[in-house]
Amino acid sequence: MVNEFLRILEVPEFENILKKLFNKFCTEYETEYVELMDAHHRVLNEDIFANMDVPPFDRTTKDGFAVKSEDTFNASEENPVVLKLLEHIDAGYNPKKEVKSGFCSLINTGAPIPQGADSIVMVEYTKTQDNEVHIYKPCPPGQDIVRKGSDIKEGEILIKKGTLLSSDKIGALSALGLNKIPVRKKLKVSIISTGRELVEIGSKLKPGEIFDINSYALQSATKSCGAEAIWLGVVPDNYENMKEIINKAIKTSDIILTSGSTSAGTGDVLKDIIEDLGEVLVHGISVKPGKPTIVGHINDKMIVGLPGNPVAALMIFEIFLSPLLCEFSNLKNNNINTRTVEYPLEKRFYSSKGRQHYAMVKIENGKVYPIFKDSGAIVGLSQANGYITIPKNVEMITEGSIVKVHLFDRI
Amino acid sequence: MVNEFLRILEVPEFENILKKLFNKFCTEYETEYVELMDAHHRVLNEDIFANMDVPPFDRTTKDGFAVKSEDTFNASEENPVVLKLLEHIDAGYNPKKEVKSGFCSLINTGAPIPQGADSIVMVEYTKTQDNEVHIYKPCPPGQDIVRKGSDIKEGEILIKKGTLLSSDKIGALSALGLNKIPVRKKLKVSIISTGRELVEIGSKLKPGEIFDINSYALQSATKSCGAEAIWLGVVPDNYENMKEIINKAIKTSDIILTSGSTSAGTGDVLKDIIEDLGEVLVHGISVKPGKPTIVGHINDKMIVGLPGNPVAALMIFEIFLSPLLCEFSNLKNNNINTRTVEYPLEKRFYSSKGRQHYAMVKIENGKVYPIFKDSGAIVGLSQANGYITIPKNVEMITEGSIVKVHLFDRI
Repeated sequence: MVNEFLRILEVPEFENILKKLFNKFCTEYETEYVELMDAHHRVLNEDIFANMDVPPFDRTTKDGFAVKSEDTFNASEENPVVLKLLEHIDAGYNPKKEVKSGFCSLINTGAPIPQGADSIVMVEYTKTQDNEVHIYKPCPPGQDIVRKGSDIKEGEILIKKGTLLSSDKIGALSALGLNKIPVRKKLKVSIISTGRELVEIGSKLKPGEIFDINSYALQSATKSCGAEAIWLGVVPDNYENMKEIINKAIKTSDIILTSGSTSAGTGDVLKDIIEDLGEVLVHGISVKPGKPTIVGHINDKMIVGLPGNPVAALMIFEIFLSPLLCEFSNLKNNNINTRTVEYPLEKRFYSSKGRQHYAMVKIENGKVYPIFKDSGAIVGLSQANGYITIPKNVEMITEGSIVKVHLFDRI
Repeated sequence: MVNEFLRILEVPEFENILKKLFNKFCTEYETEYVELMDAHHRVLNEDIFANMDVPPFDRTTKDGFAVKSEDTFNASEENPVVLKLLEHIDAGYNPKKEVKSGFCSLINTGAPIPQGADSIVMVEYTKTQDNEVHIYKPCPPGQDIVRKGSDIKEGEILIKKGTLLSSDKIGALSALGLNKIPVRKKLKVSIISTGRELVEIGSKLKPGEIFDINSYALQSATKSCGAEAIWLGVVPDNYENMKEIINKAIKTSDIILTSGSTSAGTGDVLKDIIEDLGEVLVHGISVKPGKPTIVGHINDKMIVGLPGNPVAALMIFEIFLSPLLCEFSNLKNNNINTRTVEYPLEKRFYSSKGRQHYAMVKIENGKVYPIFKDSGAIVGLSQANGYITIPKNVEMITEGSIVKVHLFDRI
């Protein structure tokens, strides 16, 4: 009646197996093409080289007059140089006339520099009468001209493969007129809740039933990692039903995330299914909460069986899975391992000796308070600011000890 | 021919006006209801109180036997207590039988505690023969039982208005079975590019034309702030066309963001339109880049006219608008003002005296390198790691000075 856990793994060994499995099956980095307007926060999946010079022509950054600079060298407030006006070159307009000595063209910000001109006199230093422009200040060659290709030259690398596309990168891609952007396909994570007591929200609870929490919490956590969550609902935890949904999930996703049905107790079937269809690599980690976690694979799809307890499920996800998913999505600062603060513990804390303990805490006025709730207490978790790690051989942390808090707040 | 800037504002005065305008028009915090699966990273717009106890009944966290604890007090390995088995209470099942002295019920993790029982003996410390259960270990009252309402009691506050809904909060909402979640409506930001030289990506450039950059960069920047971007495309910068699109935008958005048509030069019409339809509050800030920024309002809609130069437009957005939008969306750590590092400057840097200068820099091996490009250089911006601020009266920063870099990377 009672199944045995496989060998309970210590944290480093577990992390190692999980990482190897992820790297083996989830690093194909397949490409899909999206429009630039939809590329926000996607990961570029090819090196992008400039397909043209940016800017594509010499242009001016000011409103003024395009001149031959040497014509202006003797200009002053008292003795303006007088040049004949050729044409008005508005932005977007192609200049028709060459600027020869004694001539100039009116030019607007962003417009192309006409042939023959090598400098721009700002409009503030000029006066126009009829067809003549009085220039009151000399200007050096190249003034207020941005050269063709000065931002990037055709053939140079613009953005490297693996780069997260933020606003500046998207701006740079648009400068090249690129609209079909090769981005890394998002990892697809199927989420399955099991447990005979679980019902989906929107239903009415019958006695003995509770609402499914893990589907909702884990899909949100998955989205935070830049992955796509596929919600497969609550599944009865008998062998046939579970096997059917898992067989469906391995066809449509990269990772299958179940919760529930993992304890070494009665009615637990996930381990059996993975053993029958694939390989179980982990069954049990020496942590609290989250001990009955299962990891395995069926063909080339990774399966993680999280505990049914919502706090345990979410903590194991955040601590161990989120860093891998975030790295894939290049949201590198978006996992809990990178967000820590250190403060003194306000109350002593007894740990469960023999397992690495992740304990929920609240931070108030620069002090850390343990939250004493069981591992099903999702409300407790939602009111915590983070967790502290107590190594397996530590029984108690004394009041006043400085503890490192991993912060849940991911934004 | 040359319009005058209104009085050029110093940064603190500009920030003050911008913030006041934003607070006046953009803090209605209207509510919309979304399904819980779509509530990820939205901002809760009402206090949520528990509509039921969580858990809704006393339940066990272990597989075992529900007993009267006093029946087990004399149990030991040598002299097990023998209890009669009443029923099997699976998770999701409503117990039918009261546990009286001398009796017990088999119970699974998550199942409700039957009437009469006050403790759970783990299955590991028992042996079942026919209809009799041998108990080898005494158990105290309450063991492995989670009490009704221990996570949260009906009527208690669950999550406060204004909270960003991350995975743990979404989990807590699902525990209450809530599916229609009152969230803050996203701010709608209309984005309009102007400039006769601009064409949308996907088209072919004619001589003198360049691709629109600001629409793409600003929509991405807007999304990063948790706001909704409405793309209105490239609009010719003549009075009638601009007025028409702005009149359309004020009906469908909270903020109108234009770029281009702001300089005090030829062909600039945004200021005239805002003056005719509403009020111009800012025309010119003492910064580089971004001097020709316009801020005003038409009725109760805020309009920000950003410069046409992509770097200037994006920098002004990031430095001044993003903090306001992020605060609205409660993405409080998601703006550039909160992300700084300090390193020595590797090369001396000359600033444009008389204006606060935001200079793009690269960080390499713990050293800061200025990027010398003009304010249209979007590729330069996309290759920068951040910017440094040089106060208006500083002409040069010497090599080796420790500078504070605001990091663009927002993730």
